[in-house]
Amino acid sequence: MKANTTHDKLELLIERCKPFAPLRTAVVHPCDEPALAGAVAAHQARIIQAILVGPAERIRALAQSAGLALDDISLVDAPHSHAATEQAVALVRTGQADALMKGSLHTDELMAAVVHEDAGLRTERRISHVFVMDVPTYPKLLLITDAAVNIVPDLEVKADIVRNAIDLACALGVATPKVAILSAVETITSKLPSTIDAAALCKMAERGQIVGALLDGPLALDNAISRHAAAIKNLSSVVAGDADVLLVPDLEAGNMLVKELVYLANAGTAGLVLGARVPIILTSRADNSGDRVASCALAVLYAHRGGD
Amino acid sequence: MKANTTHDKLELLIERCKPFAPLRTAVVHPCDEPALAGAVAAHQARIIQAILVGPAERIRALAQSAGLALDDISLVDAPHSHAATEQAVALVRTGQADALMKGSLHTDELMAAVVHEDAGLRTERRISHVFVMDVPTYPKLLLITDAAVNIVPDLEVKADIVRNAIDLACALGVATPKVAILSAVETITSKLPSTIDAAALCKMAERGQIVGALLDGPLALDNAISRHAAAIKNLSSVVAGDADVLLVPDLEAGNMLVKELVYLANAGTAGLVLGARVPIILTSRADNSGDRVASCALAVLYAHRGGD
Repeated sequence: MKANTTHDKLELLIERCKPFAPLRTAVVHPCDEPALAGAVAAHQARIIQAILVGPAERIRALAQSAGLALDDISLVDAPHSHAATEQAVALVRTGQADALMKGSLHTDELMAAVVHEDAGLRTERRISHVFVMDVPTYPKLLLITDAAVNIVPDLEVKADIVRNAIDLACALGVATPKVAILSAVETITSKLPSTIDAAALCKMAERGQIVGALLDGPLALDNAISRHAAAIKNLSSVVAGDADVLLVPDLEAGNMLVKELVYLANAGTAGLVLGARVPIILTSRADNSGDRVASCALAVLYAHRGGD
Repeated sequence: MKANTTHDKLELLIERCKPFAPLRTAVVHPCDEPALAGAVAAHQARIIQAILVGPAERIRALAQSAGLALDDISLVDAPHSHAATEQAVALVRTGQADALMKGSLHTDELMAAVVHEDAGLRTERRISHVFVMDVPTYPKLLLITDAAVNIVPDLEVKADIVRNAIDLACALGVATPKVAILSAVETITSKLPSTIDAAALCKMAERGQIVGALLDGPLALDNAISRHAAAIKNLSSVVAGDADVLLVPDLEAGNMLVKELVYLANAGTAGLVLGARVPIILTSRADNSGDRVASCALAVLYAHRGGD
C-alpha cells in the first residue's frame, strides 16, 4: 500500500501548468474507477481537456456509480479497448488531441497502436518511458528511465532514452540536467556491459550526439545520488551525488528501483512516454488520483517545452 | 626499399642515452648479417652491452665474413634458436641481462618463450608492441600500437596496450602523452565496435584505470594528427591534431599504417615490446642498422624511466 505522504515537488509541477490552456487529451478506455477518476480530476483541475474514448454507456454508468461529473467532458464512443485505442490515436493524427492518456487497458495494447508502422505515432526517436519521482529524502525530482517500455535496450536505444529524458527534464525547468548512467560499479569492465554502454553514452555527449545535458557513468546508485558517497570514492564528476536523471541498465533493475522508492521511501510518482508524436500519459494501476494529475502535468509542461 | 632519409627525432633518442651505462642486452640468435650488425653497432655506440646468445662458431664466422669486430662482446653458445631463446630468457631471470633483443628468428618463437607460464618473463601487464615512428612531415615522434603482437585485442588488452605506450612515451620525455584512439569515425556507433572501445578507454582514464595521459577517441586518423582536419570537424579535444600515441583498432590496420609511413612517407622506425619483465627489442627484417640502434635506445630510455 502506498503511503499517504505529501509530494510538494510534484504538486509544484501541477502549479506550473496554470498558465497553459488545458491539454486536449484522448483518454483511452477509462473503464475502471481509478482511470476515470484520474482523468476527471485532471480535467477539473484544468490540466487537461479530457476526451474520453471508450464504451460510452459503460463509462457513463461508471461515472454515476462513482459520483464523477462528466458534464463538460467529450465522450467518443468505441465498443472495446482495441477500437478505443485506434480512435484515440486517430484523434492525435487528425490534430484533434495533443496527448494520449492510458485508461484501463494493458500498456502493450496501447503501445502497439502507438508504434504501428502506418497508423501509429512514431517519430525518428525511439519511444521510452520516464518516471518522475518525488522522493522526500532527495532534494529535487528524480527522473528514472526506462523502467516501463524498453526491456533490454542496446546502446542506440539507450541514447534515445537519454535524449527523451533530457527533453523532459528541461521541460520541467532543469536548465542542464545531470544524467547518471547507472551500473553496479564506477569502473569500466567488459564483464559488465552496462559500464561499456555508459562510457559510450558519455562520449556520445562529448561528440554532440547527445546534447543539452551533463552525462556521467558508470555510477553505482550511491554515487549517483549521494555527494558523500561520491566523495568517498574520489569521483571527480559534476553528476555524481547530484543526478536529475538516472538511466537504468534495463527494465528489471529500473522497475525494482522505482518500486523500492515508492514502497520504502514514500516516493510519489508521475510518468510519461516520450518519443512519439505526442506525450503519452502512462499511469499504472496503483497510481492514486494525485499521481495521475501529476502525470498529466508532465504532459502539459512537455508539450509546452521551448516556451510556447 | 626504404628511403635514405635522416631521422633527427630518432637520432636524438640515441643522443639521450649517452648519460646511461650500456644496457646489458641478450641478443637472441643473431645469425644473419643485419641482426648481428645491428647488435654490434648498438654495442659499439655504447647503447647496449651485447651478450650474443646463439651458435658461437656460426656467429664468429658471420662476423668475420661481414667484417664485424666482436672483441669485447660476450658470446653464449647455444646450438639453435630454441636453445638461444631459452638461455637468453634465463639470463634475464637470473639478473644477468636487462633487455632482450631479437636476432634472426621468428618473433613468435621469441615471444612464446617470453610469455611462457613458468619460465617466462610475464608481469601483470599484458605484453604489447609499440612502434616509434619518425615521420618527417609530423613535428614529433609518433608512437603506434599495437601493430605487431596483439592481433584483435579486446577492451582489457587495449587498456594494457595503452598503458604500455604511455610508459614508453613518458620514458621518451613526453610529460603527458596525448593518446588518440583510432577508428574510422569520430562518433559512437555500435556498428563499429572500435568506437565503443574508444569511449570505454576514455572513461577508464577518467576513472583512474589508465593514468598519466590524455586520451581521446574515437578519432579518424586525419583528426588525430591534423589540427586543421580536427578544426573542420569542430572537435573539442586536446588530443585531436596533436597525438603522441595512436592506438590502432587491430594489428592489420596498424601494420598497414606503419608500412605506409615507412614506404610512402619516409618514416624511420624503432620498436619495443613492453609489458614483460624487461624491454624486448623487436627489430624487423627490413630494419637498417640505424633503426636497430634506435630501437636499442628505446630500451635504454625505457629501462631508465622514472629518473634512475
